[in-house]
Formats: sequence, structure tokens, C-alpha cells
Amino acid sequence: MSRLHWIAASIVAVFAAAPVAGKADDATLLNQAREIFKPLPKDMGVPDLPLTKPRIELGRMLFFDPRFTIDANMSCTTCHQPALYGTDGLATSIGVQQRPHPRNAPTILNSALSIIHWRGDRESVEDQVIKAMTSPITFGQPDEKAVLDRLGQIPGYAPHFKAAFPEETDPMTAQNMAKAIGAYERTLVTPSPFDAYLAGNVEALSPMARAGLAKFIDTGCVACHEGVGVGGAMYRKFGVLEDYWNATGSQPIDKGRIDVTKDPDDLYVFRVPGLRNVAMTAPYFHDGSVRTLPEAVKVMARVQLGVALSEGDTRDIVEFLKSLTGEPRENFAAVPVLPEGAVIPAK
Amino acid sequence: MSRLHWIAASIVAVFAAAPVAGKADDATLLNQAREIFKPLPKDMGVPDLPLTKPRIELGRMLFFDPRFTIDANMSCTTCHQPALYGTDGLATSIGVQQRPHPRNAPTILNSALSIIHWRGDRESVEDQVIKAMTSPITFGQPDEKAVLDRLGQIPGYAPHFKAAFPEETDPMTAQNMAKAIGAYERTLVTPSPFDAYLAGNVEALSPMARAGLAKFIDTGCVACHEGVGVGGAMYRKFGVLEDYWNATGSQPIDKGRIDVTKDPDDLYVFRVPGLRNVAMTAPYFHDGSVRTLPEAVKVMARVQLGVALSEGDTRDIVEFLKSLTGEPRENFAAVPVLPEGAVIPAK
Repeated sequence: MSRLHWIAASIVAVFAAAPVAGKADDATLLNQAREIFKPLPKDMGVPDLPLTKPRIELGRMLFFDPRFTIDANMSCTTCHQPALYGTDGLATSIGVQQRPHPRNAPTILNSALSIIHWRGDRESVEDQVIKAMTSPITFGQPDEKAVLDRLGQIPGYAPHFKAAFPEETDPMTAQNMAKAIGAYERTLVTPSPFDAYLAGNVEALSPMARAGLAKFIDTGCVACHEGVGVGGAMYRKFGVLEDYWNATGSQPIDKGRIDVTKDPDDLYVFRVPGLRNVAMTAPYFHDGSVRTLPEAVKVMARVQLGVALSEGDTRDIVEFLKSLTGEPRENFAAVPVLPEGAVIPAK
Repeated sequence: MSRLHWIAASIVAVFAAAPVAGKADDATLLNQAREIFKPLPKDMGVPDLPLTKPRIELGRMLFFDPRFTIDANMSCTTCHQPALYGTDGLATSIGVQQRPHPRNAPTILNSALSIIHWRGDRESVEDQVIKAMTSPITFGQPDEKAVLDRLGQIPGYAPHFKAAFPEETDPMTAQNMAKAIGAYERTLVTPSPFDAYLAGNVEALSPMARAGLAKFIDTGCVACHEGVGVGGAMYRKFGVLEDYWNATGSQPIDKGRIDVTKDPDDLYVFRVPGLRNVAMTAPYFHDGSVRTLPEAVKVMARVQLGVALSEGDTRDIVEFLKSLTGEPRENFAAVPVLPEGAVIPAK
């Protein structure tokens, strides 16, 4: 090794040991972060599903409307409440007619960036809506026709479907309901201080949050929690080094994705959740078995990475995770006014 | 009768027969309306319960927070949804654990102007909140302590109680929850075109709505639907000239206020509902037995006043009633962000 190379290597080593000690370190950390993460796009649209204003607005109305579920008393917002950052705050959700959902309701915010559902049994946000209609827990309807019958009972929706799907002669279909709700959901991005940081504003994160980011990287969390969603893009076994239910007390044991794919490799496999807004979406994990974020961080480090995080490291990482809390858009924070009309649930 | 008197009397008679035919008639109708109705106040505060900003904001958070009910899955907004003008759109509400409520959920908007509940079994909006906590249908909690236990699980509420009740050393009480929610509810007034009309802007009502107002007065609806709430201030038997269940098909028969007072005079007696926002709050009556506003208007005229309204008169009256649709305030149309934290419902 030449003397110059030796000096360069030493400098890197020193920076690595004290990653947030100065301006040069700040630049290094930012560069590292930019390689691992990406800032939020302005929406989560895809080419074939245009996010037109009438389509988004229709989807927003449908998202808030309780009149399509079996007893006309639950909407998408029941489990994805705007006041609770798009979650219901429960360990596991309670569906129509008090039917228990087996898993925790993830936030709807930024969800189109992610694999949909904990076991990845939905193709897209639109696919989720269609399947929810006939899920015994979610809408509880016997078929799509029953949902459309409700829609037909609310005359005020007709012009909104016309505007959202102007080229169709009969636009009031279940597929279009799903497309509209999907379009709305695809607008629900929450730009956060971390996005400002990735854009180059180092001060958008506090020194403690930057220390936490460095530890989040160095501990190895970024092996799974990376990209634009800070997770959400891959499947992993929950409990690499230790059974998850021992660490969390979770009961009953959920076998995860194997029940979907029937592939033995998918035993205890779940999607890696995206961590945007994680500080606002307790409780944690697919089963909501862990109540607080510091505890969730420690459990993750232990069962996935074999690391016993100190209190200080945990605190710093939590501080970083708080920088992922974004601002919900106006169209999520404000409630639409729905077309009037009482529907008659079938007996 | 002098010739001059005769002319004057004839003019009055002509105006009475064609009540919206000209400027003089407009003035007469407005004067009549001003004697019968009153415009909305800026809030519904009372002297002993100050509507301070921190108290209103705390109440708004509690109103939207589902974590206090037995399964932590229903909030005040479940039956008083902002997207549905403060109702749930159901004939009769579905409470916690799928328990049926015997009556229709009235809108929360402007509700502090009115007798509370259909049978008047609550003293005030604050009394309603306190009693809701231990109602098996509404919160489903065994006692107030169970509600406070949930509150204690969400540390983020403490500073809000401190700010809302600055002179109290231990402000996190059930009574203060009720006072805060009450304070919030007392801000939920919805100024409407009819208020602009009462303020002197005749054009705020369309000619058809003015014709409807005249018919609403002349038919006798104003015997009960009067004052600031266009109703809400008195009790009346539902079904003066005909049993209400014959006209509406309602089952089972609800005996009304007699079950509260044990006074035989209160058989089939209910509070007269205020009609503000009535066009947005279907279905109608204490039992939600009638689905549309024109039908409700016709039933009322028939069973209360013995009048068979024509289609035209019904249409005009409905047009007037639409002018009672107001604009919900920002603090109802927008969702608060709640303090984070998962609660553990007792098993």
C-alpha cells in the first residue's frame, strides 16, 4: 500500500468509527444514504392508471363512504383512519360484524410503494380493493353486484363516475370503483424531513437523527429497509436468529407467506414493511404484538440481525425513524362531503 | 270601512294569496320568517363552559379518537361522520361489538341547540358524553375508570389536558373529557343560505325556496319547527292524526319519552328534531324509517297536521329545507392528528 493509499484508508476508517463528527462526515453519511434510499415521488401513479383529478376525487369519496359494506357502517377509513396516520391503532383489526382480522392494518399512506398486505396476497392497491369487496371481513358482501346495488342507491355518484371515466358509457362498475380508490391511494405520499435530507438539506435531520441514520445503516437494518419506502419491496423470514413469537409473545403463530404460496421456503416469511410514518403507526409487526417503537427496534435488531442494541443506539435509531414522519396531504387530512342518500342493507 | 282601509286590506289579501309574487311580498315573507326563526349564533357556548382554543382542540382530538371504546375501534365519528354531515347514514346505528342502537343517530352539527337525544334523556352535550362512556352500546366501558385507563396509555394527551384546564392539578378526568368534547361540539354550527336570508339577503334563497318557506309557514310546520334550530326545542307526539307506524312502516313501535318520564302524556312523544342540514342527513325520523326528504315531508304534513301535500308543494318545501344546508367548519371537515400510541383493550 502506498503512503497515500494508507492515509486515505485511515481517514475512511476514522470516519466510519465516528460517523457524525463533522462536515465531511455529514457529506459521507448523506452520500451513503443517497445510495440506499430514494426520496418520495410526487405520487405513486403507474402508466396505465391515470391520476386524473375527477378520478382521485371520486376515489376519495368512495374511500370515506361507509355505505358499501355489508351493514353500511364501515369504510376504508375504519381501518385506515386519517386521524391515526392511516391505521386503526389496533394490534389486529376488527372487520364487519365484529369479525377479527388476523393481522395488523398497515397505514394506507405511501402503501402503493409497497408489497400489498403482510403476506403479499394482493397484486396492487386496485387488486386489494376488488378483493376487499367480497372478503368476509372487509366489506363482507356476497359479490360485487351487492356493492354496485348500494352504489345505485346513491344517485349523487353518477356524475362523479362520468367525470372520472369519461370514455365509458356505463362507468359504474366494481373495477372502476377499485381504479378510483386506487388512484386516490396513489396520491397519498407523505414527504418527510428525511426527504428534505436526501435532497441535500443536512440540517433537516437533527444531529441525533443523523447518528441514528448512521447506526441504522451500520447495524444492517438497511439490508431490508431500503429504497423509496425504507422497506416494503421484499419478503423476509421474521425471526432469522430467534423465533419471532419468543421475542414478541405473539399468539397464535402465523406461518406467513407459506399459506399463500405453499412454498416451504416461505414459512414465517412476511413482506418487509416500509417504515415511513412508523413513529405514528403503533402497534408494530404483522400481529401488532409490540406496542412501542423502541421495543420494536430492539426486537428487530435481535431476531433479524443478532444485535443487542444499547439504549442509546435504540434512542438514536428511533430519532432517525421519527424523521420519516411526513405530512399527509390535504386530500387525506380533510374529509370529503359525500353524496346524500340512505342505503338499505339487505337483511 | 273607509275606502283607503278597504284598498289596504285587499292588497294584504292579494299578497297572502300569492306570497312570493313581488318585492313587497318578499319583504312580508322575510318579516314573517324573522319572527319565527333566528339566525345561528357564532357558537353554542354557555357561560360556565368556556370555549377556549385548547379545550376545543382537545375535544376535537377526543371526538376523533377510537381508543376509548371497549374494543378501541369506534369513536364519536363512527356514528357522527364528518363525511356524512355528522350522521352515520343508517336507519338505526350499530354500536360497539355490533350492538344495535334502538334509534337513528342525529347529526352532531348544531346539536347543542337542541334537546339531546330523541327522548330527551340527556341534559346537555356534556351529559351525553359522560353517559355514553358507560352505555353498553356507545363506549361499552364498564366504568369511567376504564376510559381513563386508556387515556393514561396515550402520553401525548397530557399536555393537551394541561392546556385545556390550566388551573387544575389533575385535569385528566372523565368530566374534563366530557367538557372538552362538549366544547368542541358547541363550535359545530353550520351557517346556511337561510341565515343569509334572515340577515336580509332575500336572494340567498331561490324563488322556489322562498315559495317553499311560505308554504312551510302556511301549512303549519312552524308550530314545532321554529327558532334558531328550525326545531329542536320542544317535545311533540309523533302521530297526532294517525299512528306514525302506519305512515312509516316502522317496527317495533317505539313508545318514546314515556319510557324516560313514565308520564302517560309522553306516549309516542319525541323531541322535534332541528331541521338544519336535513337534506344531508337521511334517513329520517327517530327510527330512520323514511328514506327520502320528500317522503318525510309528506308523512309529517299528513300525520302531524292532517294535510295532504301536493307534489308541487312538497317540492317547494324540500327546496326551502335545502337552504338549511350549511357549511361545516374547518375543525369538522379536517381531521386532527392524534397523539400516537397503541392502547391495550382489556380482555
